[in-house]
Amino acid sequence: MVRNKSLIYKKYTPYEPVIGEHLAVEDRPFDPEAPPPAGGLTIKNSHLSFDPYMRGQMRAPGDNGTYSVPWVIDEPAQVTTLSTVLKSDNPAFKPGDLVSAMASASEYSIVGPEFAHWCRVFPPLPPQLRPETLVGGLGIAGLSAYISFNEFVKEPKGKVMFVSAASGGVGQIVGQLGKIHGMKVIGSTGSQEKVDFVVNELGYDGAWNYKEEKTDDALKRLAPEGLDVYYDNVGGEQLDTALHHLNNYGTIVSSGMVSQYNLPWGEMYGIRNLGQMFLKRLSMHGFICSDERHVKYLETFGKDIVTWMMEGKIKTKEEVLVGLDLAPQALLRVWKGEKFGKMVLKVDEN
Amino acid sequence: MVRNKSLIYKKYTPYEPVIGEHLAVEDRPFDPEAPPPAGGLTIKNSHLSFDPYMRGQMRAPGDNGTYSVPWVIDEPAQVTTLSTVLKSDNPAFKPGDLVSAMASASEYSIVGPEFAHWCRVFPPLPPQLRPETLVGGLGIAGLSAYISFNEFVKEPKGKVMFVSAASGGVGQIVGQLGKIHGMKVIGSTGSQEKVDFVVNELGYDGAWNYKEEKTDDALKRLAPEGLDVYYDNVGGEQLDTALHHLNNYGTIVSSGMVSQYNLPWGEMYGIRNLGQMFLKRLSMHGFICSDERHVKYLETFGKDIVTWMMEGKIKTKEEVLVGLDLAPQALLRVWKGEKFGKMVLKVDEN
Repeated sequence: MVRNKSLIYKKYTPYEPVIGEHLAVEDRPFDPEAPPPAGGLTIKNSHLSFDPYMRGQMRAPGDNGTYSVPWVIDEPAQVTTLSTVLKSDNPAFKPGDLVSAMASASEYSIVGPEFAHWCRVFPPLPPQLRPETLVGGLGIAGLSAYISFNEFVKEPKGKVMFVSAASGGVGQIVGQLGKIHGMKVIGSTGSQEKVDFVVNELGYDGAWNYKEEKTDDALKRLAPEGLDVYYDNVGGEQLDTALHHLNNYGTIVSSGMVSQYNLPWGEMYGIRNLGQMFLKRLSMHGFICSDERHVKYLETFGKDIVTWMMEGKIKTKEEVLVGLDLAPQALLRVWKGEKFGKMVLKVDEN
Repeated sequence: MVRNKSLIYKKYTPYEPVIGEHLAVEDRPFDPEAPPPAGGLTIKNSHLSFDPYMRGQMRAPGDNGTYSVPWVIDEPAQVTTLSTVLKSDNPAFKPGDLVSAMASASEYSIVGPEFAHWCRVFPPLPPQLRPETLVGGLGIAGLSAYISFNEFVKEPKGKVMFVSAASGGVGQIVGQLGKIHGMKVIGSTGSQEKVDFVVNELGYDGAWNYKEEKTDDALKRLAPEGLDVYYDNVGGEQLDTALHHLNNYGTIVSSGMVSQYNLPWGEMYGIRNLGQMFLKRLSMHGFICSDERHVKYLETFGKDIVTWMMEGKIKTKEEVLVGLDLAPQALLRVWKGEKFGKMVLKVDEN
């Protein structure tokens, strides 16, 4: 048996989780020599992806309201990993393969046959690209951005797009996809440092710190011609205000609502401007990247993103924390919007 | 000069209008012998259509937030009419034509050249059909239902649709279109009499009185399998609850929000369940029937609806008030949901 530090889901709360009470790190000793389950894998994880949607996995027992696999009380959280296959009982994988898996937020994981089909084997990465990219721009954040942009942003050239959480895992890719396709792109983010990053590094046409400037003022200043697309990662007040700034036939892509995840229903922001939907003939589209309807995008996703990365058209930024001990802090930084870039937990220094 | 009673917009309020203060009936004497304006018409109105969207025309001076032509303080309200052409300076119309027009809510109206292209000339109506039908099922309420159903309800057969304001001008047609296309259709309405009407006359599979039964309870009772389409005429709590009852890939057609029209922004119902948009991959579509994108539907609309009416597959119900003096009451009955069926004001007894 070896040490196997794991992020454990201890207790539900509708509010901001407290480390030690709702989320904790515990050792769940592991036998790497044991055979994997029939059809499954034994893997060693090098990176864990922590994303806003995981707040929906940390739910009350019995709440079946959402698509994601619920976390189980007193068991390790389920996350997306970058991992090396140690043992395989599945012909699609062999020891040494570099894979992305849906697995426990641990140093080692068992992947049962029911999750093996979610694993993707990565080809060798061009040496210029950081391995963190595989759980960011080339992971589910990048895939979410790629799918939703291609699916819902029609005839982008010359249109105006507002991206909230502009420097986040999804936002940073969506904004750059907009620029690649000839859009004017503006974004909201949570600090001056992030504003400078999205404008100077990612090529956004404008950005603001939503903690310092009202959404309404910023949109009047940066998009007086109105919005054609609002790419929503945050919900709440920014969504309500964007509804007023969208032009006729505008589109809202509903990717997430991180501003509302740590609130019980009764304390959430109530959206009052949905009358704009018919007044301006708007459409709103929700999506999740793991939807079977979007499998077709996997054919071109990796190749497109890697090409654009190599051409300097897509840059990525990750906030990398090291060691399982920091897993609860990493998650809280995601849900509170404190991280800068895509949150990645590197399991150890090697 | 002849008497020309008219519905006059006197003063703005975000709340329920008060008759005499915000809306009034005044005589605006009229010369039926004067020539019409260049390119325009002189018409005598027999029926006026009063619809929920008109609340958006009764807006504060300077508010350009919506598409509809604003009413002008101390001038007649603009409505959709059923009228006879008295004089024409436009080659598309001749005296005696039966037309639908955008014109003043008066006994007589002048149609300027800028509105003449909105006029439609009706062929003779089959004798079985009431003339009121021309401002209801065959007017903009029916057109709204027909366009939006065809545009947004994809592959309807076997799906479940919830229609709010089920007995209203739009709702009554949408529900029957659903039945014609093989859907299970349920609806909310505001009295037991209306519940009986939509089930027994229109063929709804179930209905409830939203004043007596919670939306959540009714949807659990009548559609335990969940909703595929929510056709929203009311907004507010019914929309918020429907979001929770929609199935994956469900569709919301956003036609109107009559429950919120007589409220200032701060007192509107705040929608908190939009997280369901991405959790269940929903789409929401706003539309207005006068959108140039929908002109193609005019080719088949009249023929389809008349055919279905003659076959007994579409029945309509209008609440007919007689005389311009009742115009303010008619409008309030629309906005308060008190009317039963499509509201039509018949200008006189003839």
